Formats: sequence, structure tokens, C-alpha cells
Amino acid sequence: MTQRRAASCGELRKADVGQAVLIRGWVNATRDHGGLIFVDVRDRFGVTQAVFDPRSGEEEARVAASLRSEDVVAIGGVVRARPAGTENAKLPTGDIEIAATDLSVLNRSKTPPFPIHGDGEIDESLRLRYRYLDLRRPHMQRNIILRHRAIKAVRDHLDAQGFLEIETPMLIKQTPEGARDFVVPSRLHPGAFYALPQSPQLFKQLLMVAGFHRYFQIARCFRDEDTRADRQPEFTQIDVEMAFPTQDEIIHVIESTLAHMFREALGVDIAVPFVRLTHEQAMADYGSDKPDLRFGMKLSDVSAAFAGTEFKIFSQALARGDAILAFVDPGGAARPRREFDTLAATAVELGARGLGWISFAGDGVRSSLPKAALTEEMLRLLRERTGARTGDALYVVADELRAAQTVAGKLRVHVADQRGLRDSKTFAFCWVLDFPLFERDEETGGLMPAHHPFTAPAHGDESLSGDPLALRAQHYDVVLNGMELGSGSIRIHDPAVQRKIFSVLSYSDADVEQRFGFLLEAFAHGAPPHGGMALGVDRIILLMAGGDSIREVIAFPKNQRFADPMMEAPAQLAPEVLRELHLKTDIPKRRL
Amino acid sequence: MTQRRAASCGELRKADVGQAVLIRGWVNATRDHGGLIFVDVRDRFGVTQAVFDPRSGEEEARVAASLRSEDVVAIGGVVRARPAGTENAKLPTGDIEIAATDLSVLNRSKTPPFPIHGDGEIDESLRLRYRYLDLRRPHMQRNIILRHRAIKAVRDHLDAQGFLEIETPMLIKQTPEGARDFVVPSRLHPGAFYALPQSPQLFKQLLMVAGFHRYFQIARCFRDEDTRADRQPEFTQIDVEMAFPTQDEIIHVIESTLAHMFREALGVDIAVPFVRLTHEQAMADYGSDKPDLRFGMKLSDVSAAFAGTEFKIFSQALARGDAILAFVDPGGAARPRREFDTLAATAVELGARGLGWISFAGDGVRSSLPKAALTEEMLRLLRERTGARTGDALYVVADELRAAQTVAGKLRVHVADQRGLRDSKTFAFCWVLDFPLFERDEETGGLMPAHHPFTAPAHGDESLSGDPLALRAQHYDVVLNGMELGSGSIRIHDPAVQRKIFSVLSYSDADVEQRFGFLLEAFAHGAPPHGGMALGVDRIILLMAGGDSIREVIAFPKNQRFADPMMEAPAQLAPEVLRELHLKTDIPKRRL
Repeated sequence: MTQRRAASCGELRKADVGQAVLIRGWVNATRDHGGLIFVDVRDRFGVTQAVFDPRSGEEEARVAASLRSEDVVAIGGVVRARPAGTENAKLPTGDIEIAATDLSVLNRSKTPPFPIHGDGEIDESLRLRYRYLDLRRPHMQRNIILRHRAIKAVRDHLDAQGFLEIETPMLIKQTPEGARDFVVPSRLHPGAFYALPQSPQLFKQLLMVAGFHRYFQIARCFRDEDTRADRQPEFTQIDVEMAFPTQDEIIHVIESTLAHMFREALGVDIAVPFVRLTHEQAMADYGSDKPDLRFGMKLSDVSAAFAGTEFKIFSQALARGDAILAFVDPGGAARPRREFDTLAATAVELGARGLGWISFAGDGVRSSLPKAALTEEMLRLLRERTGARTGDALYVVADELRAAQTVAGKLRVHVADQRGLRDSKTFAFCWVLDFPLFERDEETGGLMPAHHPFTAPAHGDESLSGDPLALRAQHYDVVLNGMELGSGSIRIHDPAVQRKIFSVLSYSDADVEQRFGFLLEAFAHGAPPHGGMALGVDRIILLMAGGDSIREVIAFPKNQRFADPMMEAPAQLAPEVLRELHLKTDIPKRRL
Repeated sequence: MTQRRAASCGELRKADVGQAVLIRGWVNATRDHGGLIFVDVRDRFGVTQAVFDPRSGEEEARVAASLRSEDVVAIGGVVRARPAGTENAKLPTGDIEIAATDLSVLNRSKTPPFPIHGDGEIDESLRLRYRYLDLRRPHMQRNIILRHRAIKAVRDHLDAQGFLEIETPMLIKQTPEGARDFVVPSRLHPGAFYALPQSPQLFKQLLMVAGFHRYFQIARCFRDEDTRADRQPEFTQIDVEMAFPTQDEIIHVIESTLAHMFREALGVDIAVPFVRLTHEQAMADYGSDKPDLRFGMKLSDVSAAFAGTEFKIFSQALARGDAILAFVDPGGAARPRREFDTLAATAVELGARGLGWISFAGDGVRSSLPKAALTEEMLRLLRERTGARTGDALYVVADELRAAQTVAGKLRVHVADQRGLRDSKTFAFCWVLDFPLFERDEETGGLMPAHHPFTAPAHGDESLSGDPLALRAQHYDVVLNGMELGSGSIRIHDPAVQRKIFSVLSYSDADVEQRFGFLLEAFAHGAPPHGGMALGVDRIILLMAGGDSIREVIAFPKNQRFADPMMEAPAQLAPEVLRELHLKTDIPKRRL
């Protein structure tokens, strides 16, 4: 072959006409037009057309005609302009083609189990089994490249801000962070296990104690959860920690990081600073601590409108101290009655005791509520408080405040989905601040940390006196389009405060010593005030890419049963391996 | 407090005099000079001196006087020039001090178990137990910051070269890579286990099949080895893979990456291209496939010099086909006799059958060898072949070729150490090429891959015919100062060749199917030719930093028993956790 330069399948243009080149890649398609063999060659940079003319190379043209999709080839030839009228404007390389003179078939391919072209729906188990083929598909190539660019942007930005990336260990000790740990048996220490980290939380705090303020890490984390929708056993987070920070400083670092990420990876400028809501306000206005701000439809407390109503459901609710909440469905008066009925059923599925709807149609008010809840004065107050106009519909729920907020919040999102208000190309960020310090554990009835037990109480709440559920934390979440991207907090650095928190959480002294002795010891050796944040990478990339599942933005994810159908993991171990690990399996017998 | 800016403890200079500032950090030292209280405050950027004058703030001065080392403070005041004659030229901030007006003690510290100042020797188990304090020490701060810079440089360089960083999974299936896997029991799949990766090897090959040529990853890897010197159960590698590469292209990428890394992180320009040696040449000249090129002292084959000798040890060795090798110890003739005796003992410890030494002193030749090995002609030939001059010493070993090379190579390094020729500030890189494809497994006597079973045979050796031990591989190592930094190879992409390799290695068909079925299936779907490399990050940073153990360049390493004395990991699990994992421990009873 003559002297020629290797070119990617995406780079050749009119300016390259006349050059001798070599392209290598996968056969995307072949066509025979009057004896000329056209071969489209693909790599991750694009597609280039090569043309074999039997008059100038009979053998090459014969082999070219035998090529099948996904064969791997190297093609040499000279770049030439495509004949006028045959240019392909959809392709960056569409003005040129390669007059091919040489062809090497580097590897043949079996017929793929699904087409590589296009973004059609393919059974996911097949996709995961042949992930190496699935990853050739255009949208997966885009997503993985986007992920690289986004994470690179994070690193560049944080490095420029003086943050150090420090690797923390993966073989650690079990520490409770809400979910189950994956564990790793130790062969050298019979009967003992490491745990895989659910986050680098304690290590990043120790790094602050060690004086490495401004730490970050793109960290792999592990959680052995019962598989809920769209979780992976391993996931990646952007982990950030600072010494001597204010909450505002951390918020600023995270905002600028996200802005840099979206600009560099996606070419999208997001507006900073983000909207800030208190937790209380987010719940009151949106019925969620992860409010979707791409659309309005705020909740209103309309309890006062129904004061003195003879409608028993409302009057009893008000007597109990429950709340009556409503939100407007703009233009909703145009819905036929059966849609309201369906919405009411949905509301009940979402947890509502029932749904009242009021349609302010031009020709009069229609409603599921009885007249006793629809006096002139009530309707006037309702419209005043909610801003409902003629042509709108109004949805009303009554329940204990948090329950009413939560269900109204879910219904609000449901209605917005129906109305197409949740455009994946719009990015509405916000901060939710001033979270509670503790929550009630639904299962045990005991107190649990709303974030984690290392979160500092709000200024003024350090003494932890009074109702624990009324205490606020220096805890903040960043939310995008109704999804929590990450949580952060100012941490406790005073060992006495940390002990008090453990005590409120009813950890025994022995438990505290065994699990957190090293942390308390570290705090007693000059721990600086510190705080930080962790952001979920998979979810951020998913929102950037637009898609339904984080499996679309992870190169080799597990399926929903946490298995890898390609490698067939997890798998049984050889008996001698188990013996070396001082383990026996103890499989439950199936019931007959 | 008045309006003032937060400053690090390393940034204030004469130009800042007059500014109101706030510094925060750890008390490095306090001194009382005639009632003035001097407090040195430290953070990771430096040390700044603050001065409290009781005349301008009695309470602050009193608290300042009570400060102890490692207390955490915030100090406000005005920058002023130090009085003439009291400047500290050793400190970048040594021209200024802060006339302190405000002091907050943010956290008190217990007396540290070892001093934070200076780089003195401290028992390592204590250092690991209080790692958060150990990491405050200056050389650990330097090492961790160096590590950040070096890895950032790698990412920047590879990104600029069009490489994509792609995360591969950590919960995978057991695949044999020479060492034991750490495993992770699956709760959802009773009796089944994931393995933690020893490297992303198979995934990066699948990424090439997927069309992501130019992949890299800074990847955490795991090996459950019997603890040898300076190994960690988890370690980090720079993992690189390319499609359609030549060996030269990969070598160039790695050289430019290392050069960028050393320049950006260390300010050292290393010369590229590196020296290239074949494996055979490295063994012949340096007795090692990891030759230290910071010094000469090449080995010479002096078998011919002793042809016809009546010295039985040499004549029998030559009759057996063994080799007699020698190397020069420049100026070694000055050694007293007992040093030669000690060296001979060392050689035997290193595996030699014995060591002959010849001292070419000015006043005559002395030697441990008998006259029958020291005829005029033999001495002439020896000096001719080895280049030994008057004043030098010569060391001679006889053994089967590989054994003789290996022991002479070790002795060469030992002598260079004695002579101080292994300067940690000199960086001598080289490539070792053309490794054998297979090695004999010392334990089983069977064949094993010299690198891994995915390494392509050398051009011409693809048919795998003839003596397997004579086959060469497309396998290359990069070596720095006698340490292997990494291994790479062109991989097999043809499923038929891969099957043939497995068959030479005596893997059963069932075994191949079960362990590598997915890989062979991937190769059958259009796998491009591909190859790459993996470099050990911990070792590179160690060589950059200069030090004895990779534990010096890892923030939270395990000890030599793979335990973490700070967290006390690994640890026993609660019985209910084991039950959930369908496991029982099976601890061997100690013998009485």
C-alpha cells in the first residue's frame, strides 16, 4: 500500500480530497449500485463511505461485496468528492467518499442479535447479554461519551477551585448509612469481613481532620438494597468536602460545578444561583422535598375556605387539625368528566383518602364535591387563594398535613405529565434547605437521622432540647426536575455533640464505641468545622442525556435483579475457594 | 469583627500588609516572648504567625497563651511586616505576621500520640491507627497532593489525546488473572458470589469490541494475595486500551503520558523515547526483566574465557551447558577482603551456587578463585570481555543461564546500592519488549501465560507451533529504576486464536465455556484488533515521591496483614447479617 494517513470515520471533508487515507471500523451497510460496491464504515467518530470499482480492483470489489454488517475492515484509498447530487447532507462526511483500492477484513462478525443502527426498542435482557453490541448503538455511544465529558468537567472545575481528589479505601468496616452493606470475607482473618463503602462519608470527614480541606472524589459506592426501581448495586458519586465552610460556600461550589458540567458536556448554560426553598416551603408549595420547578401548579392551603362547611369529610378533617390542600390544573375545565374520575382513582392509588375536583367551566361550575362545600363564598375564597380562573380545574385533598402535601405533590406531577409540562430539555434546579434533623422511622417508630448521624443541628438547635422532630439540620439537597441530585450538610465536629446525637438515636455506648470510636477519637484531636455534599453521577448524566433508566448511562450495568447476564455474575464459587475463605453456604430449602 | 477576607496560612506576603484578614487552621506552636503571645497557625498551604499583645486585647492574649498544639483556631487581625531582623526566610510567609485582635477556638485537641512537625520515624502501627494525624505530617501532605496532581495530569493528557474514561463494574464474575479474587456474597442470589476485579482487563477488551477505541480509566483493583512486601489488597491502576493499534502507538501514548505526569506533578522533564530492550537483552545485560538503568555494571558472558579451565566447578558447569557470567564493580579493588566474603555470602542468599571475585588491585590480582581459573590468558580475556580495569573488582557466577542471570542481576543491584548509585531523584525509564508468551509454572510444571491468556503471540508465532516456551508475545513492560511500572500487550481478537491459547494452557472446553464464553462470543461479533497497557499508580507516585513503601502515597492504606488498625477492619458480622447472606463461617480450630 502507498503512504497514507490513518483517518477516523468522522473526520474527512472536501478539503481532504486527493489525500491517500486508511480508515478502519465496522461495516455499517453495503450496497451494490450497478456493479459499484458501496461500503459505509463506522467508528465512534462517524461514518465514511468507501466505493469499490471492479474495473480498478476486481478482487477487492468481490471481497467488498461479501462484507456483512459489523465485519471489521481496514480500507485504503483516495478521498474524492461525491458526484454532484449524491452528497449526503445528514452526514458530516457526506460530501466525500473514498475511492477504495485496498481492503483488509480484520475480523468477521456473526449476524448481530439486534440491529446496531437506529435507537429502536430492544428487549433489555438481550441488550445486557450482548452489551458490547448494545454499546455500539448511537444513543449508547452518545451517552457514554457524554458521561466522560461531564465527569472530566467536574474534575477540571474542582481542581481549578483548589480541590484535591483523594482516593479512599473500598475495603472498609461496616458503618450504618441506612442501607445494607455488601461485605467481603477476609481470607487472612478467618470469620472477619470487610464492607464495601456506601459512600466515603467517614473518610472524607477524616480527611478534613487530617487538614486536606477542599477534598473531592468521583467515588464508586455500593448498596445492597432490595431492588427498587432504577437502582444499581454500585453507583458513582461526586463527593465533596470542605473545612471551615459556610453553607453558602458549599452551595456556591456545587452550583458552579454543575454549571461547568452542563456547559462543557452538554453546551447548556444553566442559570446560577439556583432557587432556594426551605424544606417547609417546598412541602407547602410543591408537596415534595424534591420539587419539580419546570412548571407552576403550586399547592394552596384552602382549609380556611371551608371553615364552617357542613360537608362532613371537610368539617371532620378541619376538626382533627388536618389540612385541605388544592392546586390548579390550568385549562382543566375542558376535561370530560371521566378524566376527572380517572384522576380521582389515581389520587387514591397515590395515597389520597379521596379527591375533590372542581371545574370552573365557562358555562358553570361542576364538581365532585357536594353543594355544602361549594357555597358562593367558598368558591370565591377558593379562587382567591388558588388563583383558579374560568377554564381551569381545581383538585382538593384533605388529610393530615404531610400526607395531604405528599399526595397532592404526586398528583401535581401526574397532571403535569399529562399536560407535557415535564420537558427533558428544560433544566430547573433548586436547593431545598433547613431539613429536619430527625425523622420518625416508620417501621420501628424510633427516631432516625433525616440525612445521616453526622449532620450538624441548625444554629440554635445544638443543645438538641425540645421535640426532636422539630429540630432543624444544616442539611441541604440540590434538586433537578423533581429528582434529588445530591445531599449535603455541615457536619458535627465536636465530639460531645456527636455523642449527644448518637444518644438521641438510642445507640448504646458499646455500639458507639465499637462503630464510631475512631471517629470520636479523631474529633478529639483537632477536628475543624467541616461540611460537604455528595451528588449522584448516574442520575445527573441520565437527566443530561434524557432517558428512562440509569442503565442507559452506565457502560456495564446490572439488571434489576443485580445480575450481569453477559458474564453471568454473581456465580457459585468452587468449594476450595469457599474453604479458603472459611465459609459455608447456608441456602434456605424451598418450601414445597 | 470588622470586614476582612479569609486567607490561607500560606498566601500572605509583604504586599498584603495593612489588610484585615481571617486565618483558620491548626496551632503549630505557641511562644511567649516578654508577654507577647506568638501563635503559628498551619493549614495545607503553609504556616502563618499571629501575635497577640495583651495591651490591645487581654482576654485574647490569655486564651492564645492557653492554646496547645493541634487546637483548631480562627484568628482575625491585620497583616503587618515583621520587625526588621525577625523575618523568617525559610517560610514563604516569613516576612509578615498578623497583629491579632480576635481569636476563636473552634476545637480543642488532645495531645497527639506523635509529633506532627518534622518527618521523624514513628511506629507504623501507631501512624495507621491515627492516620488522620499522620496525614497532617508534611511529607504525607506532600505525597497526597503530588498524587492528586499526577493523576490529574494523566487524565488531562489522555483526554487531550482523545481517550474516553469509562467506568467498568466492580461487582463482576471471577476470572483468573493469576492471583486470588476477593469475593462478595450475593444476598439476592443465595449461594452466589460476585468477585472484585483484579483489573478491568476483560471489560476494556469488550469496550474495544463495543467501538470505544481509546479508552482509559484510573481503576481501583483488588487482589487477595498472601501478603508479600509492600502489597495492598486494593490498588489503583492507569488502564489504557486502543483499537487498531501498533505496539509503537501504545508505547508512544504511554511515554507521553508519563512525561506529562512527571512534568506537571513533579516539574521533572523525562527524556522520551525511552530506551528499548528485548526481554532477552535485558536478561543478558542486567539479569532482570526490570533492569535498573541508573547505572552501568552490565553483565558479561565470560564462559569462553574459561574454556579448558581445570577449575572443576567451571569446567563442569561448561560441560553441562551452564553459563559463567561476570560484572565489574568499578573501584571495587579497594574493598577489604572481608567485604568480598560478605558479598559472597549475600550472593548465596540471593540464590547463587557461589561467588567468585577477582580484585584487580594496583599491586596485583587477588581472587577467591583458584589458580586454574586465573591463568594470564583467562585474566586477559576476562578483562577484555568485561572491561574491568586496574582498581576494579569482578564478580563471577556460574549456573544454568537464567539462574545465573537472575542472581548476577540481583547482586548487581546490591553492589549499586552499596555504592549509592541508585539515586531516587534520577529517573531511568526503559521498555522491555518481546517477552515470552508462556512460562513454566514452578509449582505445577505446566504452562502458564507470561502476561495473561489474552496476549497475542508475536507476528510469525500465531500458529503456536514448536516449543511453547520459545514463542514470543506482543507483550511489553515499562520499567523505571528497576521497578516494573506496568505491562501491556496487543490482545488476541480472533476467537480461533484465543481458543488455541486456552487449549495450549490445558483449559478444558467446559471451563473455557463457563469462564470465557462471553468473551469468545464477543470476539465472534466483530472484535477489532486491540491492545493496551496498565500502569501501577501507587508505585509510580512512590517513585516520584521517593520513599520506601506504597503506604506512604495512599491516604488510608491497610497494614501488611491487610487490616486497618484505625477502623478495625475487617471485623466480625452480626449473626443476622450472615443469615441474610446465606452464609456460615467455618473457622478452623486452633491446634493445641
